Amino acid sequence: MEFLKITSLQNSSIKHVVKLREHRTRDKEQLTILEGYRELTRADEYGLEIIECYFSPDQFLGENEYPLLESFAAKGIKVCEVTPQILTKIAYRDRPEGLIAVAKMRRHTLEDMPIVPNGLYLVAESVEKPGNLGSILRSADAAGVDGLIICDKCTDIYNPNVIRASTGALFSVPLAEASSEEALDWLRKNNIKTLAATPHTEYNYTDVDMTQAVAIVVGREQCGLSDLWMNDADLKVVIPMLGKIDSLNVATATTILLYEAARQRGFKKK
Amino acid sequence: MEFLKITSLQNSSIKHVVKLREHRTRDKEQLTILEGYRELTRADEYGLEIIECYFSPDQFLGENEYPLLESFAAKGIKVCEVTPQILTKIAYRDRPEGLIAVAKMRRHTLEDMPIVPNGLYLVAESVEKPGNLGSILRSADAAGVDGLIICDKCTDIYNPNVIRASTGALFSVPLAEASSEEALDWLRKNNIKTLAATPHTEYNYTDVDMTQAVAIVVGREQCGLSDLWMNDADLKVVIPMLGKIDSLNVATATTILLYEAARQRGFKKK
Repeated sequence: MEFLKITSLQNSSIKHVVKLREHRTRDKEQLTILEGYRELTRADEYGLEIIECYFSPDQFLGENEYPLLESFAAKGIKVCEVTPQILTKIAYRDRPEGLIAVAKMRRHTLEDMPIVPNGLYLVAESVEKPGNLGSILRSADAAGVDGLIICDKCTDIYNPNVIRASTGALFSVPLAEASSEEALDWLRKNNIKTLAATPHTEYNYTDVDMTQAVAIVVGREQCGLSDLWMNDADLKVVIPMLGKIDSLNVATATTILLYEAARQRGFKKK
Repeated sequence: MEFLKITSLQNSSIKHVVKLREHRTRDKEQLTILEGYRELTRADEYGLEIIECYFSPDQFLGENEYPLLESFAAKGIKVCEVTPQILTKIAYRDRPEGLIAVAKMRRHTLEDMPIVPNGLYLVAESVEKPGNLGSILRSADAAGVDGLIICDKCTDIYNPNVIRASTGALFSVPLAEASSEEALDWLRKNNIKTLAATPHTEYNYTDVDMTQAVAIVVGREQCGLSDLWMNDADLKVVIPMLGKIDSLNVATATTILLYEAARQRGFKKK
């Protein structure tokens, strides 16, 4: 298959992709950038609407890129070859693996969140660093979370660094964005208990039952959860720390709690 | 207490600290840079030999900085006030919190590694990213690891980004650097079983006994463990992944394994 080739940085499509490196432009146009074979494959697999795709074969890591590009073209996605210089210029990250796509952001609302009997949910309040949010998504996918609610967000969930750190889990985990009040209402209405980690409790995280419908609530690293979540939490648990340091990274604490829930559930999705 | 004040970037001590931002210089002089109140406090607490300390009060985050500086001066450490411009120039990270110190690297050998009955050890083979090694150290401290052996290192353990990501756990966890062969010999000699995670086994990580002397062995993210560790591992376990992604970050996998060991051990250090 022959693809259109762009060789000038002055091309209007290329200039547009460069503008999408800015959060403001992405937000205004509700578009995001995807980079790398794994991310593009997963985005496509989970139904993200890809609009256009640029590639530079010199930077390919494997041999599966052309079949992917051909499947994109067959769906009517605009696919263009570019020079290595252009690909490097438009890429958000250092090593984009020769593949960059522009895709439509999805809107994620509580109305679309699946209600799974005895489901395992995760609430992330005000997580600040894209890398942490990406890691949380990756662990949520691995531990079989049925839905992630992002509250009072402090980072753009379609930030390319979130997509990258999540290794594509951004597209596979059911998501909703909401205020903390809306999320708490939704959980209460659906009889999903909330579980918060805090040093100020005698209950170990391994001592509470996480096999019923439960939402694990995690907050920002420095300050922990807001009073809204902490005061109203149905279950409060401590993650013991046996050494000298006095805090865990938010993504690490999330992983520990999620994998304890997965263990109690026999490593089966409900 | 009055401190010496440096106002020129041309000062020879300042030029020396700038040079220490380079790996080569740190390695040659066996010196490292510490930044931030927490890191300096922990380094001092765990006996790292601090040689000199620079501060700029405008950037202090709290009120405990002066007592720390006075305790340094009382020990004979050279303590100098610098301008905010100088502090920003010599800092490795964006927000050094007004405090930078130069300290001697320690040598960490297997001869100095404590042999704890039924101890919990961790082996990290060829971990590449400073942020991952720092996270692993932080989880190792929290889970009560008795010693961490760093094999065939791919990153400078005194890289300031390791110190930062470890939040000081680099100084609290007993460490050794060794080749994989030396480490395996040492573990065999001391009757410490090795446990490796792999997708190619039927044993779940929660199904094996981690209450006896055991070393959890983790490897580089992309390629996993080398044959040396994988073939000779006494225990091979899988961490189930219930979603769509097919791999976990090395620091995340390490945390899951370490906290399972801690759970089996009743969250008590042996």
